[in-house]
Amino acid sequence: MAEALKIGVAGLGTVGASLVRIIHERQESLAVSCGRAIEITAVSARNRDKDRGIDLSGVTWFDDPVDMAKNGEIEVLVELIGGADGAAREAVEAALARGVHVVTANKALLAESGVALAAAAEEKGLLLNFEAAVAGGIPVIKAMRESLTGNTISRVYGIMNGTCNYILTRMEKEGLSFEDCLKEAQRLGYAEADPTFDIEGNDTAHKLAIMTALAFGCEISCDDIYLEGISNISQEDIRAAAELGYRIKLLGVAQRTEGGIEQRVHPTMVPHDTVIAQVDGVTNAVAIESDILGDLLMVGPGAGGDATASAVLGDVADIAKSRPGIQTVAALGRPAKSLTPYKKARMRSHEGGYFIRLRVVDRIGVIAAIARRMADNQISLESIVQHSANGGGEAPTKTIIMVTHATTELSVRNAVSAMESDGYIVGKPQVIRIEKP
Amino acid sequence: MAEALKIGVAGLGTVGASLVRIIHERQESLAVSCGRAIEITAVSARNRDKDRGIDLSGVTWFDDPVDMAKNGEIEVLVELIGGADGAAREAVEAALARGVHVVTANKALLAESGVALAAAAEEKGLLLNFEAAVAGGIPVIKAMRESLTGNTISRVYGIMNGTCNYILTRMEKEGLSFEDCLKEAQRLGYAEADPTFDIEGNDTAHKLAIMTALAFGCEISCDDIYLEGISNISQEDIRAAAELGYRIKLLGVAQRTEGGIEQRVHPTMVPHDTVIAQVDGVTNAVAIESDILGDLLMVGPGAGGDATASAVLGDVADIAKSRPGIQTVAALGRPAKSLTPYKKARMRSHEGGYFIRLRVVDRIGVIAAIARRMADNQISLESIVQHSANGGGEAPTKTIIMVTHATTELSVRNAVSAMESDGYIVGKPQVIRIEKP
Repeated sequence: MAEALKIGVAGLGTVGASLVRIIHERQESLAVSCGRAIEITAVSARNRDKDRGIDLSGVTWFDDPVDMAKNGEIEVLVELIGGADGAAREAVEAALARGVHVVTANKALLAESGVALAAAAEEKGLLLNFEAAVAGGIPVIKAMRESLTGNTISRVYGIMNGTCNYILTRMEKEGLSFEDCLKEAQRLGYAEADPTFDIEGNDTAHKLAIMTALAFGCEISCDDIYLEGISNISQEDIRAAAELGYRIKLLGVAQRTEGGIEQRVHPTMVPHDTVIAQVDGVTNAVAIESDILGDLLMVGPGAGGDATASAVLGDVADIAKSRPGIQTVAALGRPAKSLTPYKKARMRSHEGGYFIRLRVVDRIGVIAAIARRMADNQISLESIVQHSANGGGEAPTKTIIMVTHATTELSVRNAVSAMESDGYIVGKPQVIRIEKP
Repeated sequence: MAEALKIGVAGLGTVGASLVRIIHERQESLAVSCGRAIEITAVSARNRDKDRGIDLSGVTWFDDPVDMAKNGEIEVLVELIGGADGAAREAVEAALARGVHVVTANKALLAESGVALAAAAEEKGLLLNFEAAVAGGIPVIKAMRESLTGNTISRVYGIMNGTCNYILTRMEKEGLSFEDCLKEAQRLGYAEADPTFDIEGNDTAHKLAIMTALAFGCEISCDDIYLEGISNISQEDIRAAAELGYRIKLLGVAQRTEGGIEQRVHPTMVPHDTVIAQVDGVTNAVAIESDILGDLLMVGPGAGGDATASAVLGDVADIAKSRPGIQTVAALGRPAKSLTPYKKARMRSHEGGYFIRLRVVDRIGVIAAIARRMADNQISLESIVQHSANGGGEAPTKTIIMVTHATTELSVRNAVSAMESDGYIVGKPQVIRIEKP
């Protein structure tokens, strides 16, 4: 059997501790599967004294991950520190510069610096593996980078944030408000104390940016993603969606269009009888549409120490199975220098169906006025539902819910803004895009 | 750039012709992704004069695939002939003996001879890739063989036969009989003129046998699979399933139990609100349950020339990206010589819920007698539904539908056979196993 593969783990949080424990516990079976042992020779974390429930005897401790990357007796750096800059980035750069393979779960780092890091890895014939960075344990990077070689991908989309999907699922199943579900998610550890990054879609955007590059062979562009979170989704939207045969999911979508590549993260109506609509709770799902294979959907755990550690371990095992310096898998599916520049499609040109919910004053002629504004903007309606008048303290109002046939974002914006200036709209109109498989 | 990878394609049916066309059309992008060109240098098929709509100029033609495997100027044999024996097997054996990598879509060959072929490949340091053999375009082999390295898998199951799923879906959606749906499937080319192999579950069994070995690190055993097809599923079953919150799918299931490994293919009730229950038509789905990653489900096209060719191409690309003779991925996830013997769990020990539909004579005491037989066998009921009496020409009968809590196959068989000897059962009782994620 070949010599053991020596790895250094930077970051001993939930994922890092899981990984160390699993590699210790499964030494023998890993050696059988990989054709050689995987040995943790070095680790790095902030607090040396913390009890993580793992055995670190015989492992060299580094206080500084960059020091470990530069000087550790390692062939692979496993970076689990997180963050787009700072120690994570420096350690990864130092490892690649020195001829050490890198496995990382760091989506922010890749979304910001993925192309440069891929180029650095390729220059040295090193592997840069990052399965855990997108959709946790779901092997979506491997599918795009390896299985789909030769395919032209037209669209990738998915539920890539467990916190948001948990909240939306509970809102739907239990009729609770967004705020109550968020509190519950925080109590259960599914949401951070400051949940902004998850619920406003930034986390999904990071993952989407990486998938976009793999799908379309273009450079990563994380700043140009259209972003809309789930905090303004109400019970009214959820109920209206159900009535119309849809469920609401926070999707990240990247799509090739004539005008460029669309990257968008927003609450989305998906038809109730599709597979992705049934993905509930913290589970993630990623769909890939390609021209030879067709439609592929992968569903699984998108977070959690063990699930993420599993993806990291798969990446490490891939390196153990290949011989260092020999494998030629390009980190982003094709050599970094052959990636095309990212060409952004304008959001106003997005085409699709729309759900529009309006509260309007209940008077004669309003429906006709709304219909005229839709027609003025060449929007044709798939359905229109009027909900019973709501006679609160003020003037009576009613709710109008419309689902459009395919139209453009610009048309919808123009129509809604014309209606607002018409003066019969009460409150803020709700507009949710529809995505169909 | 490295030299082109030379491949020989044996078999130019739908998949072979797709593959040749795609490799020609996408030469450049494949070369970019793989770091070198993929070149078809040889092909073999029965009829040289047939117009397949593909360009074979400059390609060496072999009438005999074994001759091509032995003498073609090739580094990879792509075997698309099919069949467990004969030319397919001889060509693969000849290629491996000669130091040529093999990519195959041949599930029958692998189910029968997979271990021996894996051993032959490993002895020479060759790759034996067979993504297309199970669930067509869905990268389930790669997920099990690579992504899940280090995981202990407890169960794999899936919808792996598009013909059966198409028939069951149409029966459910349109209320048609099994026979009518089968005819329609034949008319549309989704079923063979002789559909036995598909509808009786043999095709699913071949795929399951391969997955079982990958999942549990055991030898392949195709002969020991419990087999039950879909031809006796009636509209009554479909409607009763819907009423109870289930859908009927033909599943292949492999499961680790205390008594050994269960391998079974049978019509199965799956809860309506699960993701796999929503997989309709010819689409396939495979679920893998493992201890670190958790539950992974992959959904996609399980057949068709292009989808299958995509999987074959992914396998070829993996070889192009590695350097021949260097990669150490064991064909079955671990070296063939380290596979454990297959230990079969007895079907009578299978534990799970059961759906039981009985037609009984409508007389006092029958329900009590049925309940007693269930209790005698320690079977507890989740639900029991009695359907309105059917007053045909003969004695009046009624239908009893029961869903059990988890019990054993033996208990159910004993209970049903006791009821049959009691004399109140009319016709043949229907028993369908329930599978829960």
